Order: sequence, then structure tokens, then C-alpha cells
Amino acid sequence: MSTKAFATRSADSPLSPFSLNRRDPLPTDVVIDILYCGVCHSDLHQVRNEWGNTVYPCVPGHEILGRVAKVGSAVKKFKEGDLAAVGCMVDSCRTCPSCRAGFEQYCDVGGTIFTYNSPDEHLGSITYGGYSENVVVDEAFVLKISDKVKDLAATAPLLCAGITTYSPLRHWKVGPGQKVGVVGLGGLGHMGVKLAHAFGAHVVLFTTSPEKAEDAKRFGAAEVVVSKDPDAMAAQARSFDFILDCVSAQHDINAYLQLLKLDGTLTLVGAPEHPLPVAAFNLILPRRNFAGSAIGGIPETQEMLDFCADRGITCDVELIEIQDVESAYDRLLKGDVRYRFVIDMASLKGSA
Amino acid sequence: MSTKAFATRSADSPLSPFSLNRRDPLPTDVVIDILYCGVCHSDLHQVRNEWGNTVYPCVPGHEILGRVAKVGSAVKKFKEGDLAAVGCMVDSCRTCPSCRAGFEQYCDVGGTIFTYNSPDEHLGSITYGGYSENVVVDEAFVLKISDKVKDLAATAPLLCAGITTYSPLRHWKVGPGQKVGVVGLGGLGHMGVKLAHAFGAHVVLFTTSPEKAEDAKRFGAAEVVVSKDPDAMAAQARSFDFILDCVSAQHDINAYLQLLKLDGTLTLVGAPEHPLPVAAFNLILPRRNFAGSAIGGIPETQEMLDFCADRGITCDVELIEIQDVESAYDRLLKGDVRYRFVIDMASLKGSA
Repeated sequence: MSTKAFATRSADSPLSPFSLNRRDPLPTDVVIDILYCGVCHSDLHQVRNEWGNTVYPCVPGHEILGRVAKVGSAVKKFKEGDLAAVGCMVDSCRTCPSCRAGFEQYCDVGGTIFTYNSPDEHLGSITYGGYSENVVVDEAFVLKISDKVKDLAATAPLLCAGITTYSPLRHWKVGPGQKVGVVGLGGLGHMGVKLAHAFGAHVVLFTTSPEKAEDAKRFGAAEVVVSKDPDAMAAQARSFDFILDCVSAQHDINAYLQLLKLDGTLTLVGAPEHPLPVAAFNLILPRRNFAGSAIGGIPETQEMLDFCADRGITCDVELIEIQDVESAYDRLLKGDVRYRFVIDMASLKGSA
Repeated sequence: MSTKAFATRSADSPLSPFSLNRRDPLPTDVVIDILYCGVCHSDLHQVRNEWGNTVYPCVPGHEILGRVAKVGSAVKKFKEGDLAAVGCMVDSCRTCPSCRAGFEQYCDVGGTIFTYNSPDEHLGSITYGGYSENVVVDEAFVLKISDKVKDLAATAPLLCAGITTYSPLRHWKVGPGQKVGVVGLGGLGHMGVKLAHAFGAHVVLFTTSPEKAEDAKRFGAAEVVVSKDPDAMAAQARSFDFILDCVSAQHDINAYLQLLKLDGTLTLVGAPEHPLPVAAFNLILPRRNFAGSAIGGIPETQEMLDFCADRGITCDVELIEIQDVESAYDRLLKGDVRYRFVIDMASLKGSA
């Protein structure tokens, strides 16, 4: 099945039209015509080979939302015409304890198949992501989108930015009566603020950009702290139950660990390139936790989508055409996006 | 009340005889004649001013066990002749949420008064520790020692090495069916092995000294891994529920984080001088926790002493005279102690 897409051929070449093959649907497969695909910073890392493991040509995109075009004979959850979504994973070993517990992203045997740049056991090549007309995925890794959802484009980024923040906020039981910090107001951080607020917490946003304060408050932050202001930081010492750190760049983690209460947790969802130095006394006096979290499993991703559909929670997005994705990457690098780019896949139809 | 002690007068002078004043007992005070005092690495850090905050003369010692010589008129828990013990703290604010919850070591207002080198509000000087004939402490910070205890000298180090390992093992609910690592077989580590084994866990000791394997197994370790052997370390990847890291020197924390299962926790109880670099991916894939813990509160210290008394758990100690403490420090620095020095305070009687 020949499919139009955009791909990069090398770390220093721009995304350009590409034709790829999708497999013929197996009995448990769902074929999804893609309507919208979010632009995640991971897409940029991968196409530019910043993690050193990119196989070219590379078709990124793992915030996929579309409509079911066809289903295999054994598919139970979906029928033609349904809304459907795919996030960061398209398969896993499915048999290890983590997979059986619904933590496919933490597959014990390293069997998670990511939506792009993972081995494709069906076609012998690598997986190709959502910057394409369609995708073929086993129904076990396809998410349902409620008919309540009005803004499909603004829902697509929930598949990565949404679940990456929802999962740790749920795991560490963020709720009413808690003071919760969110560090950084980008694609992840703006969802962290919206979700922590929806869970009933008192939310404090930390940012280096004072001009983002108004948006943060609109998303649900009760307070905004400019992290470059030492007095403002000191005033928050030892007061947080939980801090969600959404910063992917190098930054001083000790400055935030000091803001946690006894038994508070700081969870990293960004992944800075170099190790972060941690001063032992910031974990010892008082007792504190420094943790990490990656996306979320399939059951929890469905739970998050349903939660957001029920409450009308979406991302704040800028809709772009796929021909403009390189300039979107340039703006992403400058932090100039409020707060997620989403590609309108109708724009792909007219491409070569 | 003039009391014989050993003190240092500067960072580069040896411990030598010193006469200090203890306060006259207040109504809630207990006067304890000290029988034994353990030698903790903190004592050495403090007398040599390695934390930069030492006030001289400095009388170290916070693993104190003795017999009650006198009690104030309002004392309820103790009477003359009782065994009694004092650990790392002699007071705290007692009113903040942490103190009220029995976490006096994490006092929210920084009001913990340590057994030595803390401000002494009664005499206006600083607190002096257990390298002395006696100590005067409010009964709220004095621990009871069961009459079941046979080996008093080997019980003294429970007041720091015991509680520092007991508290995190309890807090993170170490028990049967769990695989638990202990890093380093020193004063803390050997108690970590004994206690984790007593709690029913499968205990793996990590050491750089293969010659300690036999002792580790005697203390309850089911396996011993020489941490300098990369293959032996790789064989343990992603298999631990909990790791107690008892190393105070700089070491590669990432090598141990990689050994944790999904949702496993590594807790630091040593405090390396310089920050430890942590690679974000070791916390993110899979989700893991890096934590710290300091000693334990008064209620938990009593619980630990009772637990050890009931089960006959003590430290492995070498009894020394106070005149030999400098050579004990030299051996401590070389890791040449199996596994805690304890000063027989009878040796102080004959000093100048």
C-alpha cells in the first residue's frame, strides 16, 4: 500500500515528499487515514540524528489522530469511519510483566516498538510515523477518540504531550490540597499545568519567560515564579508536594529539589542530553525523591483521552501545513510556539 | 557539672583530654553516665572541619549508651539505674508538622539540635557529644534500652548506623519477596545487610572488596557482587526493588540506578561531598526513583532498638580505649574496620 509522506534523507537535509509502503492490514490491524499530526520536539531530535540512532529515510510524527479507513477481520474495537489515534508506540512484547500490567512503554525485554525509527517486523524495514497519509497499527495500540471531542487538531498532541504529563501526575497521586510545581511552559508544560489544575492541585508554574505568565494563569496556574529570580525561588523553599519538570535542556535540578517538602517528589519528563548533578543533601535533608517518567501505557492513554474529552481539555495549538514544518522546527528551537504545532494532513494531498 | 571528655581544639590537632560543663538537670532531664560510644565517620568529618562548620573545642560522639545516674523531678520514662541511649539529636522545635509527626531530624524550621556542634540554648555554647563521661538530655530525646540486650557495646552503634539503615528500609517497605541491594560494607552497610535480611528480603551486597564476601554472607546477604566487575553488574540489570546506597565517597550512581526494576528506588544514606551526575534516561526508562534519607525520628529509633533487642541484632564492633581514637580514625579512613569502632568509656576514667 503506497502512501504519501514527508521524510528526511539525512541529518542535514530538510523534510521533503517521500513515498512509503504500509503493510496490507492483518486481521487485527486498523488502517487510519491521518487528519492531524502534532509536532513533538522528539521529531526534531530524531530527524537531525541528535540521539545518534536515526535510520534514514526518517518519517517522524507520533501524535496521530484520524479516521478509520478499514479494519482487519478480527478487529473488535473499531469500525470504518470511527475516530482513532496513535501515540508513541505501535507494539511491544505483550507478554512480560510490565506489558501485561499495561506499561508497554517500560517493556521488560526492551520490546517496545515506537511509532517511528523502530524495527518493523512486518516489512523488515523501520517504522514510519505520522507525517503521512495513513498508518496501519494493531488495534491493541490504537486509541479511541470520543465523539464528544470537538477540536480534533487540538486533541492530537494529547497522544504525547498529554499522556507524558498525565501519567506522572496520576502515578504520584496529584490532587486537591497539594501544591504542585510545573517547570517550563512548552508543549509538555502547558499540558502539565492544565492537567494538574484539573486534578484540583494548587499549581505553580516556573518559567524563565515572564511574558508567559498570563497564558500560564489562563491554563490554570495559581502562581507564576520566574526561575531566574533567586528571591522568588527562595520564597518557595520546602513547600511543594510534587514538581513536574518538563525541561529538556540542561538546568539546575538542585534549585528545584530544594523546593520539595519532606517526602516530596520531583519527576523529570524531559530528557536533558547530559547528566544532571544532584547534591546528596538535597535528597537527604529532608527525605525527598527524584524520579522520571516516560509517556504512558495504552490503558492509561485511553483513560487520559477520555478524561480530556469529558472535561473539554485540549492543547493550545498552531495549525500548519506540512510544507512549513521546517520553519516550525526553527521556531520550536527558539521556544517560539504557543504551545504545540499541529500539521493539517490535508496539506499532504497536494504534495508531489 | 564538670565532666571529663576528649576534644579537638582545631582541624589539625588530635583528640585530647578536655573538661566541659554539663547543665544541672532540669525537671525533664536525664543524666546518663556513658558506658560506650560508637565512632561514626561523621565524628571524623566534624573534628577535621570537613563540612566547614566546626566550632572548637569539638567533642564528637552520637552513638551513646549508658546508665541513668539521675533524673529530673518531672521525668516519667526513666529512673536511676536504667539503661538509656542517645543518638544524633538532643532536641528539636517540637511544634512543626515534621516534629509532631516524629520526624525530628527533618524539623521544618531547621530546629534540630544535634548531639554535638549545634547551638546549646541552655549553656549558650555548643553541644558536646558522647566522647565524655556523661550527658544531660531531655527525656523526650532519650531512648530506652531493653533488659534483653546482652551486648551493650555492640548495641551503641545502632543509635546512628542502625537507625540510618532501618528507617529507609521501613519507609520503602522492604520485605519478603523483594530483591534488595546494599552498596558498601562499612558501619552502615553491614547493618543494612543485617536489617534487610531480618525483614525477609533477598539481599545482594555490592562491594569493591571481594574479601568482604564471607562477612556479608554471615550478616545475611544471599549474593555478593564485586562492583568493579562490569559483567557481574550487567547480570543484575533491572532486577532490584530497592537499593540502599551506604557509600559516602564519590561513586557512579548511574551504575546502580540501572539495576532497579520499574518503580524501584535507590536511597542514598551516605552523603558524598560533590554532586552526583544522574543520567535522565536512567530515571525515565523505566520509571525509577532516586531518594535520600537521614537517620530516623525518635519514635522510629525506639522501634528499631526494640526490634533489634527482640531479635538479638547488634553491630559487629571492635572495642577501643579513648586514648586510641586517633589510630581508629586512621584505620577508618582506610576502610580497615570490621565494622564499627566503639569506645569503652571506662578508659576515660584514668585520663588526665
